[in-house]
Amino acid sequence: MSPTDVLTSHTLSSTTHAKFVALRSLLVTHQLDGYLVPAADEHLNEYLPEAKRRRIWLSGFSGSAGDLLVGQERAWLFVDSRYYEQAELEVDSALMQISKLGLEKQKTLDETLETLGREAAKGGSTFRLGFDPFTITVSQFRSFEKQLAPSGVSLVPLTGNLVDRVRLQEPWVSAEPLPVYADSKLFDLPDAQTGETIAQKLTRLREDLQKANADLLPITKLDQIAWLYNLRGWDVPYNPVFIAYSIVTATEAYLFTNLDRIAPDLQTVLQTQVSLLPYETYAETLKALVAKSPHQRVLIDPNHTTMGTQALLTDPATAIACRLVDATTPIEGMKARKNAIEVAQMQQANLKASRAKTRTLKWVDDQLSRGASLSEADVASTVERFYAEEAGFQGLSFNTIAGAGANSSIVHYGTPNPQRVLHEGDFLLLDSGAQYASGTTDDTRTFVVSTPTPEQVECYTEVLKAHINCAMQRFPKGTTGAQLDGITRSTLWFAGLDYGHGTGHGVGAFLNVHEGPNGISKRVSEPLEPGMVTSIEPGFYKPGWGGIRLENLYVVKALDGDKVLQPDESPNPNQLSWYGFESLTYIPFDKRLINSDRLDDRQREWLQQYHAAIVAKLAPTLSPEEATWLKAACNID
Amino acid sequence: MSPTDVLTSHTLSSTTHAKFVALRSLLVTHQLDGYLVPAADEHLNEYLPEAKRRRIWLSGFSGSAGDLLVGQERAWLFVDSRYYEQAELEVDSALMQISKLGLEKQKTLDETLETLGREAAKGGSTFRLGFDPFTITVSQFRSFEKQLAPSGVSLVPLTGNLVDRVRLQEPWVSAEPLPVYADSKLFDLPDAQTGETIAQKLTRLREDLQKANADLLPITKLDQIAWLYNLRGWDVPYNPVFIAYSIVTATEAYLFTNLDRIAPDLQTVLQTQVSLLPYETYAETLKALVAKSPHQRVLIDPNHTTMGTQALLTDPATAIACRLVDATTPIEGMKARKNAIEVAQMQQANLKASRAKTRTLKWVDDQLSRGASLSEADVASTVERFYAEEAGFQGLSFNTIAGAGANSSIVHYGTPNPQRVLHEGDFLLLDSGAQYASGTTDDTRTFVVSTPTPEQVECYTEVLKAHINCAMQRFPKGTTGAQLDGITRSTLWFAGLDYGHGTGHGVGAFLNVHEGPNGISKRVSEPLEPGMVTSIEPGFYKPGWGGIRLENLYVVKALDGDKVLQPDESPNPNQLSWYGFESLTYIPFDKRLINSDRLDDRQREWLQQYHAAIVAKLAPTLSPEEATWLKAACNID
Repeated sequence: MSPTDVLTSHTLSSTTHAKFVALRSLLVTHQLDGYLVPAADEHLNEYLPEAKRRRIWLSGFSGSAGDLLVGQERAWLFVDSRYYEQAELEVDSALMQISKLGLEKQKTLDETLETLGREAAKGGSTFRLGFDPFTITVSQFRSFEKQLAPSGVSLVPLTGNLVDRVRLQEPWVSAEPLPVYADSKLFDLPDAQTGETIAQKLTRLREDLQKANADLLPITKLDQIAWLYNLRGWDVPYNPVFIAYSIVTATEAYLFTNLDRIAPDLQTVLQTQVSLLPYETYAETLKALVAKSPHQRVLIDPNHTTMGTQALLTDPATAIACRLVDATTPIEGMKARKNAIEVAQMQQANLKASRAKTRTLKWVDDQLSRGASLSEADVASTVERFYAEEAGFQGLSFNTIAGAGANSSIVHYGTPNPQRVLHEGDFLLLDSGAQYASGTTDDTRTFVVSTPTPEQVECYTEVLKAHINCAMQRFPKGTTGAQLDGITRSTLWFAGLDYGHGTGHGVGAFLNVHEGPNGISKRVSEPLEPGMVTSIEPGFYKPGWGGIRLENLYVVKALDGDKVLQPDESPNPNQLSWYGFESLTYIPFDKRLINSDRLDDRQREWLQQYHAAIVAKLAPTLSPEEATWLKAACNID
Repeated sequence: MSPTDVLTSHTLSSTTHAKFVALRSLLVTHQLDGYLVPAADEHLNEYLPEAKRRRIWLSGFSGSAGDLLVGQERAWLFVDSRYYEQAELEVDSALMQISKLGLEKQKTLDETLETLGREAAKGGSTFRLGFDPFTITVSQFRSFEKQLAPSGVSLVPLTGNLVDRVRLQEPWVSAEPLPVYADSKLFDLPDAQTGETIAQKLTRLREDLQKANADLLPITKLDQIAWLYNLRGWDVPYNPVFIAYSIVTATEAYLFTNLDRIAPDLQTVLQTQVSLLPYETYAETLKALVAKSPHQRVLIDPNHTTMGTQALLTDPATAIACRLVDATTPIEGMKARKNAIEVAQMQQANLKASRAKTRTLKWVDDQLSRGASLSEADVASTVERFYAEEAGFQGLSFNTIAGAGANSSIVHYGTPNPQRVLHEGDFLLLDSGAQYASGTTDDTRTFVVSTPTPEQVECYTEVLKAHINCAMQRFPKGTTGAQLDGITRSTLWFAGLDYGHGTGHGVGAFLNVHEGPNGISKRVSEPLEPGMVTSIEPGFYKPGWGGIRLENLYVVKALDGDKVLQPDESPNPNQLSWYGFESLTYIPFDKRLINSDRLDDRQREWLQQYHAAIVAKLAPTLSPEEATWLKAACNID
């Protein structure tokens, strides 16, 4: 199944009011003053399985991030700058207040709850906040405890999700029945593609667990499980993962999932490394393993484990005598540092996606010069068609963003419109990616229809400079994402421009298009290390006018002088280790939008070399007509 | 008393062995496997009062940072890159192992303790680590609990400091008696200098405490107390602070200090705002206040409160029913954002210090061209003499660093040598600062004796570019120190250079030369806000060859276009707020070391304007001969 088939659930906002009424009556039953409906599900997925899209189902807001708080009288939706415009378009502000996080005087969820707590405290009571502990992380729970408890908010974890209970009532249980869950076929990846066997990964993981003083690791996140067992599935749109839990101990490994969808021969192979158990037995098995011998040390990663799992271990009723070790799971770093085979696979996949997008750019040029009418949806479906023509296509890695004109300023504009036709002078921002059996891709180009205005050229050139400044930076071992974020923005800031999102995110190897622990933003203190893949995607957005984003994927490489080392070669250990970025993406930038005079020598040289590399890599595989177009686009004779 | 008089305590390393023997016998008494002697004292001072220099007294290592761990057989000293060389020079490596933090395979304190814990666990026991809870922060204690407990380390807080107990034994009690403590005269600052009365500060603080859901704030840090009560003293070298605790509640304020040294009329004035109590009554008063009404919420700032204070509140024996609110103390941010009067005072003070250093540079030029022999100590004493000639001089703000040749690569080279004479081709790195009644200063210039080598010019120019890139950066509200750190290093990294310290630190207004919460380094996620003062001090150091550091102080200003706003004017609230730096320091850079061709247009323009501003500000106050020298140094006709 291609994940594109899954993403169709938009509820009508007209039913939101009725759903709120039903939820509010459950609040009364449980003596709650409010109920938290976070964006997350039981596995902290960014892209939720249909069955777990509780906030979307309840509120109608379809953004990938954003929490909802429903009180007895009022409700609040908290969105970041990517979704300011989308939230306004999708939800009824009479039903809920949209809090635009990051803007002046817009309260965060915590601040809103603090105010509610203080108001309740003034009346001599507390604000009872209900939530499903399996939908918030341990770290979010701790932050609630720290921030909210002193202000008069009582935290009330409830077994069973109240939104699910509303959904199981009429009329919704009949009209919008819960979709099936966790039934996609699992498939395994050959070692030639992963570069490391399950046994090797388990050995490394167990060594790291020992170093972290932990005996047992429960795993909540699906991409960590998929990576560890070299397995994939399509239980979730865009992310090739499957709904599961896992537990790893010094001697055993357990995988909890719907076993019906694993072929018997695959089961046989897997069972040499890991015990396969039904999904529903996770909680009881975790408790039993911990109860088996006392004082075991269980690693809890506060950002990647739900409060629900921690509660299984700390329930005073069952009184399990284990010790929680608070640490980042070693899997995140292991997964992020791609081995040489994974890097080669990612190069291959991104070259395919680059070809597809380059062909799309040419196709758009052709259509427009022919005077054809083109919509946002036409552009989106064309790039998706070209993706699918490449060998090994598995689906998209996220919903294609194709925003024209003013829509290009909506950072995550996820619904390309067949009615919105491209006009002269429009920007078209095309952010898309695919999943290939070899790897995951993500890139963005912005182009202009016909002749650009000087302001369009100026802004595009500034965003391009920001992109190049980050892409060409050499940096020593230990450099963090926050430092590189500043380097990227520096010249933009001089031009009085900025963007309200991070500069880059980690990307998995045939896995999630967003992964940690690396990233490039002011909040990321994680150093970038060889083998990590990151996007570099500065932008500029002005509502009404339009938006620009220029995104490539890069892999971090160790440099020895100017020589790029292979992942397994070590540079001279007596000297500072220097790293740099190598592009995985090869798609031309729009030369009509570049004012070369505004680039410095180093930037110009980077751009020339980059365009030359595009031609060298793509032209031999294109049709003669496409190759000619590409050479012209890249200023290569 | 000038703080320069205080800094004379260097113990002979030959006695360290005997002190270790005495401490180890106390370890046996307390059944400890090790004792931690951190750099910090009861008030988490960077510059310790003589009486509290336990690690220096015990080990002989005189660096401002670095913890010591003494085990039964072995001992470890942990130093950061500023002190690699100094530690080698000062301590006997037969007695303790120097761990150079940040280098490959050098273990941190935590890692060393983890190893010791694991070794003990293998033998079926635990490693019992003793420490004085008043010498570690709450946050360090928590980190110990989290990191060390699972590895087999038992944390044993002990009342009474074991190093103090050794020091009270013969022969040391007679030979090196404990110096007097907390006896300097207190003096108050007029409102015309602080810009805010005690009453106004207490009102703002109480509003912030209420917002933080706290009823009571114990204050441990001396600069916070000095700032809050507009008082200063000289209990500690370089920092104009006095040993005290304070407690602030919604209605009351308490100051605990040696009252004998407060003049009666000052006591009378202060008592209208704050209850004055003897230093020794802090603990009992805190307990009594908390016991007075149950469920009070006490703000504990984990980084600015000792575990000792927290233990007073959580002692199960006394069982005080209070609630700890974990938050950053509001005082840090209030103190860091200087008001218009403080900014003006800092400008004045730094202009005085700039004049003193500029005169020093000319004096050095004169001496050298006359063929005189000049030592590091001569240069240091000259800048100190010129500082003292300026009105309102109160002392140095830290020990003058004047390192020639290879010594210039020792980042915190604190002992200018009268024997080390300047030779042709030497760098001289002169990092110094003064305290004036109006403000605190800190700046660094590096110059070359006679003609520089091309490598010296290249490296100096790169460090200067890094400095300028940060100094001239415009940045939006919310920009963090980590982002600016990256911006500073970017061009250096392209040249293959870097430095092992942060780019900048906060500076107090006639207070500590190092203060938070702002700073410029990869670890600082605090945004820079108008009124904050920061150093910008990139460098480059190559052991044996020498070092370069170029440091100015800057104040963050709100920009409206290119217009610099006064601190109380607000820019258009509907637009992104833009900030920039305005220099407080006006000292020429060494033009012999600048290759202008390597600067870009913007950097060259910044440098020209900066040099023109130096001449405009300083020349009218210099002798004609000095003014002529300055104009030549600044390339101004």
